[in-house]
Amino acid sequence: MARPFTLFTGQWADLTLEEVAELAAGWGYDGLEIAVSGEHLDAWRWDDEDYIADRLGILERHGLKLWAISNHLKGQAVCDDPIDFRHQAIVGARVWGDGEPEGVRRRAAEEMKHTARLARRLGVDTVVGFTGSSIWQYVAMFPPVPAEKIEAGYADFAERWNPILDVFDSEGVRFAHEVHPSEIAYDYYSTVKTLEAIGHREAFGLNWDPSHMMWQGIDVVDFIYDFADRIYHVDCKDTKMRMGNGRAGILSSHLPWGDGRRGWDFVSAGRGDVPWEQAFRALTAIGYEGPISMEWEDAGMDRLVGAPESLAALKKFDFEPSTQSFDAAFSQD
Amino acid sequence: MARPFTLFTGQWADLTLEEVAELAAGWGYDGLEIAVSGEHLDAWRWDDEDYIADRLGILERHGLKLWAISNHLKGQAVCDDPIDFRHQAIVGARVWGDGEPEGVRRRAAEEMKHTARLARRLGVDTVVGFTGSSIWQYVAMFPPVPAEKIEAGYADFAERWNPILDVFDSEGVRFAHEVHPSEIAYDYYSTVKTLEAIGHREAFGLNWDPSHMMWQGIDVVDFIYDFADRIYHVDCKDTKMRMGNGRAGILSSHLPWGDGRRGWDFVSAGRGDVPWEQAFRALTAIGYEGPISMEWEDAGMDRLVGAPESLAALKKFDFEPSTQSFDAAFSQD
Amino acid sequence: MARPFTLFTGQWADLTLEEVAELAAGWGYDGLEIAVSGEHLDAWRWDDEDYIADRLGILERHGLKLWAISNHLKGQAVCDDPIDFRHQAIVGARVWGDGEPEGVRRRAAEEMKHTARLARRLGVDTVVGFTGSSIWQYVAMFPPVPAEKIEAGYADFAERWNPILDVFDSEGVRFAHEVHPSEIAYDYYSTVKTLEAIGHREAFGLNWDPSHMMWQGIDVVDFIYDFADRIYHVDCKDTKMRMGNGRAGILSSHLPWGDGRRGWDFVSAGRGDVPWEQAFRALTAIGYEGPISMEWEDAGMDRLVGAPESLAALKKFDFEPSTQSFDAAFSQD
Amino acid sequence: MARPFTLFTGQWADLTLEEVAELAAGWGYDGLEIAVSGEHLDAWRWDDEDYIADRLGILERHGLKLWAISNHLKGQAVCDDPIDFRHQAIVGARVWGDGEPEGVRRRAAEEMKHTARLARRLGVDTVVGFTGSSIWQYVAMFPPVPAEKIEAGYADFAERWNPILDVFDSEGVRFAHEVHPSEIAYDYYSTVKTLEAIGHREAFGLNWDPSHMMWQGIDVVDFIYDFADRIYHVDCKDTKMRMGNGRAGILSSHLPWGDGRRGWDFVSAGRGDVPWEQAFRALTAIGYEGPISMEWEDAGMDRLVGAPESLAALKKFDFEPSTQSFDAAFSQD
Amino acid sequence: MARPFTLFTGQWADLTLEEVAELAAGWGYDGLEIAVSGEHLDAWRWDDEDYIADRLGILERHGLKLWAISNHLKGQAVCDDPIDFRHQAIVGARVWGDGEPEGVRRRAAEEMKHTARLARRLGVDTVVGFTGSSIWQYVAMFPPVPAEKIEAGYADFAERWNPILDVFDSEGVRFAHEVHPSEIAYDYYSTVKTLEAIGHREAFGLNWDPSHMMWQGIDVVDFIYDFADRIYHVDCKDTKMRMGNGRAGILSSHLPWGDGRRGWDFVSAGRGDVPWEQAFRALTAIGYEGPISMEWEDAGMDRLVGAPESLAALKKFDFEPSTQSFDAAFSQD
Amino acid sequence: MARPFTLFTGQWADLTLEEVAELAAGWGYDGLEIAVSGEHLDAWRWDDEDYIADRLGILERHGLKLWAISNHLKGQAVCDDPIDFRHQAIVGARVWGDGEPEGVRRRAAEEMKHTARLARRLGVDTVVGFTGSSIWQYVAMFPPVPAEKIEAGYADFAERWNPILDVFDSEGVRFAHEVHPSEIAYDYYSTVKTLEAIGHREAFGLNWDPSHMMWQGIDVVDFIYDFADRIYHVDCKDTKMRMGNGRAGILSSHLPWGDGRRGWDFVSAGRGDVPWEQAFRALTAIGYEGPISMEWEDAGMDRLVGAPESLAALKKFDFEPSTQSFDAAFSQD
Repeated sequence: MARPFTLFTGQWADLTLEEVAELAAGWGYDGLEIAVSGEHLDAWRWDDEDYIADRLGILERHGLKLWAISNHLKGQAVCDDPIDFRHQAIVGARVWGDGEPEGVRRRAAEEMKHTARLARRLGVDTVVGFTGSSIWQYVAMFPPVPAEKIEAGYADFAERWNPILDVFDSEGVRFAHEVHPSEIAYDYYSTVKTLEAIGHREAFGLNWDPSHMMWQGIDVVDFIYDFADRIYHVDCKDTKMRMGNGRAGILSSHLPWGDGRRGWDFVSAGRGDVPWEQAFRALTAIGYEGPISMEWEDAGMDRLVGAPESLAALKKFDFEPSTQSFDAAFSQD
Repeated sequence: MARPFTLFTGQWADLTLEEVAELAAGWGYDGLEIAVSGEHLDAWRWDDEDYIADRLGILERHGLKLWAISNHLKGQAVCDDPIDFRHQAIVGARVWGDGEPEGVRRRAAEEMKHTARLARRLGVDTVVGFTGSSIWQYVAMFPPVPAEKIEAGYADFAERWNPILDVFDSEGVRFAHEVHPSEIAYDYYSTVKTLEAIGHREAFGLNWDPSHMMWQGIDVVDFIYDFADRIYHVDCKDTKMRMGNGRAGILSSHLPWGDGRRGWDFVSAGRGDVPWEQAFRALTAIGYEGPISMEWEDAGMDRLVGAPESLAALKKFDFEPSTQSFDAAFSQD
Repeated sequence: MARPFTLFTGQWADLTLEEVAELAAGWGYDGLEIAVSGEHLDAWRWDDEDYIADRLGILERHGLKLWAISNHLKGQAVCDDPIDFRHQAIVGARVWGDGEPEGVRRRAAEEMKHTARLARRLGVDTVVGFTGSSIWQYVAMFPPVPAEKIEAGYADFAERWNPILDVFDSEGVRFAHEVHPSEIAYDYYSTVKTLEAIGHREAFGLNWDPSHMMWQGIDVVDFIYDFADRIYHVDCKDTKMRMGNGRAGILSSHLPWGDGRRGWDFVSAGRGDVPWEQAFRALTAIGYEGPISMEWEDAGMDRLVGAPESLAALKKFDFEPSTQSFDAAFSQD
Repeated sequence: MARPFTLFTGQWADLTLEEVAELAAGWGYDGLEIAVSGEHLDAWRWDDEDYIADRLGILERHGLKLWAISNHLKGQAVCDDPIDFRHQAIVGARVWGDGEPEGVRRRAAEEMKHTARLARRLGVDTVVGFTGSSIWQYVAMFPPVPAEKIEAGYADFAERWNPILDVFDSEGVRFAHEVHPSEIAYDYYSTVKTLEAIGHREAFGLNWDPSHMMWQGIDVVDFIYDFADRIYHVDCKDTKMRMGNGRAGILSSHLPWGDGRRGWDFVSAGRGDVPWEQAFRALTAIGYEGPISMEWEDAGMDRLVGAPESLAALKKFDFEPSTQSFDAAFSQD
Repeated sequence: MARPFTLFTGQWADLTLEEVAELAAGWGYDGLEIAVSGEHLDAWRWDDEDYIADRLGILERHGLKLWAISNHLKGQAVCDDPIDFRHQAIVGARVWGDGEPEGVRRRAAEEMKHTARLARRLGVDTVVGFTGSSIWQYVAMFPPVPAEKIEAGYADFAERWNPILDVFDSEGVRFAHEVHPSEIAYDYYSTVKTLEAIGHREAFGLNWDPSHMMWQGIDVVDFIYDFADRIYHVDCKDTKMRMGNGRAGILSSHLPWGDGRRGWDFVSAGRGDVPWEQAFRALTAIGYEGPISMEWEDAGMDRLVGAPESLAALKKFDFEPSTQSFDAAFSQD
Repeated sequence: MARPFTLFTGQWADLTLEEVAELAAGWGYDGLEIAVSGEHLDAWRWDDEDYIADRLGILERHGLKLWAISNHLKGQAVCDDPIDFRHQAIVGARVWGDGEPEGVRRRAAEEMKHTARLARRLGVDTVVGFTGSSIWQYVAMFPPVPAEKIEAGYADFAERWNPILDVFDSEGVRFAHEVHPSEIAYDYYSTVKTLEAIGHREAFGLNWDPSHMMWQGIDVVDFIYDFADRIYHVDCKDTKMRMGNGRAGILSSHLPWGDGRRGWDFVSAGRGDVPWEQAFRALTAIGYEGPISMEWEDAGMDRLVGAPESLAALKKFDFEPSTQSFDAAFSQD
């Protein structure tokens, strides 16, 4: 369909945006999904025109375009509980501040508003990211968790995100939440519940990333049809299942990424079990014309080999749909 | 094995034979399986020598050969009941006439005889096609259908086709029925029964097309072994299954081709679930040396992209068999 | 849950209602789901008070109750196309008349209205049945069927059933359609579409009978959750799958019921593959408190053996739900 | 094998021990696995001879025996992080105190030591329970968790439990940890790692409870063979999987127990997917002669119905092994 | 169907026939399938009228009947190669003699002829047994085995068994070979080949025993349909599969029966994976009216418990077929 | 990882080593795994310096290297029982001699010692091969085989191989046994047992060849982790499963290689069901840096086509592992 392919810069934060842009352009990507992280993008400089021009200049120099930016790491801190050393490592000094949890959450929310403003200045209408969750920690439901506590988690999410989404609305930008463990919406029914919590307001949609749905047993293709009007962005990360020998468990034993004893792992897109072709056909069916963004992650493969390989792997599913009715042709007389 | 690959023209009836021939030759096909349909072939002109020469001339100009012709649409009308608007759209004015069902069936049978004569004139010994069926409509078996009614359906088939097959015999041509819903033989046991009904006469064999056997759960490779002496032709159409989410049903809800909510759909050969490699090995095993004909159909892909792609996809299974006994080499001393 | 268990009399139409009542009561059934068929019930006598009293008297004599009546056979004729010998065998002389199709459909519709009136007189608020369908015949989609033809089928259904449902509304009775091949709604998406066609009017709901959903690959338990507010009645018929050997196809080769070469068959409830326990739990979850009706059908078992056996088999899933919160008990301190 | 069957009292803490004993004896249980919880058992009274006599008296009165006691709830608090409202609800006022986390952990550890002493006084040599875990909260591994943090979790466990196990050793009692989410060992490889962390000391073994291994995809029968010398106790809780429709996810959307939309749930033993017969044969194979304890939990069934039903269900797998060599009998001549 | 149930005495050869008869009768068996082995039956005394009367007297005393006798162990030695210590242990001194292989085979063949004569004298027309095989030893096909060697194996079988079958013919008795590893026919295609080798002579049929077909992946129900006219006897032994954990292999590591690490094992009929109900329905379909013989074997269960249990387990599948056409009843008007 | 790829010469013994070397080099192989067989290598000339130089010269001329040699055929004869025509065809005249079994075994053992010496002279430290087995013939366990007989088989193996392994030790060479039917270790538990029998001495390790583990249901990837310290060499042969139609059995009916009715067969690497990518990742995980040797075998494909094709197919899995920690990059701030 000639949909644009972009490279998500989150896993390349050790390089400068210039370096990532050069690599991506060289491999044939059409653009970047720039993460508001490290040197790549700073949301607090949204109103600095020179900064905006500088960032856009980098893209332009390499012939790349921008359809969306993302801010997973600060979004994560908006609702999370507890806030701890893990957040300190990812939110940056400005948001972390003194580390007092509520302060961190408040500053993270602030940055998400700035991210909407930044998107507007950069000329894009989609921000991809995480929401965090105050109830993810209770996923095992033991020690016992009362139902009201779960309800309160969805309410907390709505309370914290509605003001952020108000800014998105006023900027004409949409938030695309990535369904993912650790977040308020992490599977089918929690997504249904999350959309209800926020009154199905249009500012809040989804970033379709199949990788964490795969091991949960969610039908990633059906998910596209079920939430057709909320698929605002597409991130491609692939998952290989290795269940079935009775020892590799679905929770993967706290084993690190890339350890073959895990029950599942992320692999270069096209080498896993995601039914990409059916997914691309479904995206065509719902009329998705946005970017296909590569979130490349494979702990067992060199990323310089994998990033171009996966681009080629997925492009072969982005074919033109039929412009011909077969039965019509068949019946010609 | 260097078996010839042909393109079935049925789904290209909106183009002239000349146009199809040019495309097919350009993509590397060795020949065409020309459908007696539209402008491509007219069975009623079987005794018009200039017409025959003209048709063969088109092939020759493009370096293509002919191993079989087909006439699915008129074959369909021979036994069908009811005969209705659907047939009107596909059988052509000459066979349709005033649309009186028995007249349509009679004229369709007549055309099938001509098709055998036409095949002889064109120098080929195989006609691919459908038979139609007076009992397909009772497949759901409700409202209740007495067993004699089913027996009568097979008898009706034999009665209508035996005279046609007599002409095939006298022309030295064989009919290759495509096992397919809507036909007298649509799965394993109905094929067994159909061959019995016709006394296993040699004039009646099968066109192995796995696409509709896939979703019925028929073992398409075993089918080749089971009916080894009746595989007269091979048509390649691929099927992708999408069952398993508990909502996409096997009957597919009257949803149109290409709708991802169907339980299964046709896809460009090589992109579906047909075990092509095992099938090609089985064809080698039974000594099938006829053409491999591409019946290209994929409602989600541009046919100009798909027709050459699928040719490449299937050619990689048409490898030379071993000329070496491994154990022999292994034992060399 | 002590839900009542009833016996559907449709497959016992060769016996008198009195005989069926005696058998059912002897086996421990709580009531009957009387079919408007044969000697059992005559819808055209709905306003005959003596007749009503007589029928109710039979039940009373045997200590049985009535929660629903059914009229599958005449419902079938309301939309069906074609109307043929099969309908003649099941609709009765009054509806068949001279057999002219449109007249049959009209009289069948008339009887369905009477059936609502009859239900009211008998003191029940649910009529179970079929709808028929003018487009079921096109389920194989070949010869090609234009999309408008399918749409027209749903429209035809709405047009023919709305006036019937108006009578249902005025009588305060609901129609529970059985999702089944040959009907307008036969799987998940055709049910969605059917409910839309009729504007989700409350008079039209569903009779949950898992038997024909099983072989279509529909998740019969999810179906209860998905259409929770439309489950008006429950019929229990079980299905045994026999797919997987590559020869028994899903369409079952026109083989008769009870032939082991079929890909699936009906068996005495509890001997097949329906996940009854999960289904009963789902019925509890949606608050279904109506009757559990046994539609007993197994071509390989004597019905006098099977009808009591299946009652025992299903009763073990009708247990009382928990009245205790485990976590609460667990936390007691 | 005539292994004794006991009822775990944890889910009956709203009743007195006397009441539970009466029920269990009436249903045919041979004994109880008394939870140190609620009124049932108080570990801090381990040196109160009258109390010990009173508890044993209750059992004696009902003809019940004691093979093991358990203390899941306080074990949970030994390593857990965070310590919060959930623990407050389950550990009791004495351990909770002012709720300062480290104090709670310390007092919980103290109670576990007392539990060993109590077991000794009650004449049993096995204490079943949980360990808690400081790293369970990182199971999703996002936000990123460094490997050292995971290692530190196992070390923390060893540091906190070794002193407790010293008391177990001096009392001649063994601890049987239940592999379970929220604990240090929750699947196969985390169990391997946990045993290593504790130097495989004999005081620490396992309580085989298949329920949480089922949904993780662990082979519960192989688990018995793999950890044959560490199976110190057996708890029977059953799990029904409901995956496969593409919407019910393995993490179950924070849905409450008993909600049919969950991907899995606990059910009365014998109604789920645990391969009990193979498990019992494996227990025989490793020479396990301890109690079979019923941990009854099924949110959709009345426990007064389920507790006796499940006892009958599992007893049919506890048959006598063969005392005869078949081949020997076969060869007799 | 009230088919008779018999107990195969092979695994009870350490008891006298009198003792087995008493047990079997007590459990409700209708008869015995007496093995020509140990004290049970001696084929060489076929012409000793007192002996015959004595044996029949035992049955009569216990109200048991005889439909078939078996001689697996001597049949095994007819074709086997090598003949070794294993045969010495099972064929008895008379057949073993000096152990010279060809002599053993000759005497085994002689005994099989006597077994036919014995059957005739005992009034039964079926002898169940094994054939042995000179090529079973080559099943792994390595070191390489030339195709002629395999052909020679089938020829050797025909040559050795035809003279035996001649005696069967003259006595009016049929041989029912049990498809089993170690024999000439051990799976589907080797059975096809075996029947061809012997020219499909009627004297040679099959004893349907599903146990060894299960782990080979043979469809045991289809097998009944495929060889419908050769099913002369039925032996019921059940198999439980334990594959799927990636360590338990299909060849089972030379582990003894009853070891849970095997990939499969024999279990008391009704506790394994044989689809008994579908098999019994298929037996009804082909018109099998002979005995259902229990070949009880389960290394993990006491045979005194298992033999009566399995009788009850299988009897519930031997129900009466329908005498009623459902559609007929349904259509009654 | 740039691991070297070699071609195993066993299946090319009808060509000279020079011819094989030329072909392999032309296709891009890095070296050969030369079989001590035919003209390729003669173990008895291990101390002939000219011969050694000549062999190495051939490799050098074609730019090939040597990492391992193999001697399957003589290894097979060390323990095998019976020794027969099959061995005569593969062990060569010198080892066969007069064919007296014990003499053949003794001479085969002698040649294995020479093979270690030859490896040392050729500069390689690994010899790949088979062990043979005196108990493989009893794999079906019928006629009954006493457990002591099985134990004796492992003891016989240890007794015969320990002296050979002593020579391996003194030469500083390791033996890599290929787990394979017909050998002492053919699946998971027999491998465990074999390593125990030999006291886990380091001289004895494994050649990981997944082809025969596939059809036995062994998890070939787990096998790498489970025997991580004993994986001394890797041979790549692929297997395609064709089970599931109920007629193709796992033992494959003595049907020849390449016959599509077999339940499984060998195919060109990359065309079968071996999970190559997961296997290569596992090899990386255990630190395997030795050669990847192609044991090419596919009875349905010309080997001149297949040998280069499979090299390309597997090389795409031999990618560089990640040198980057994703979480580290992700957290960059």
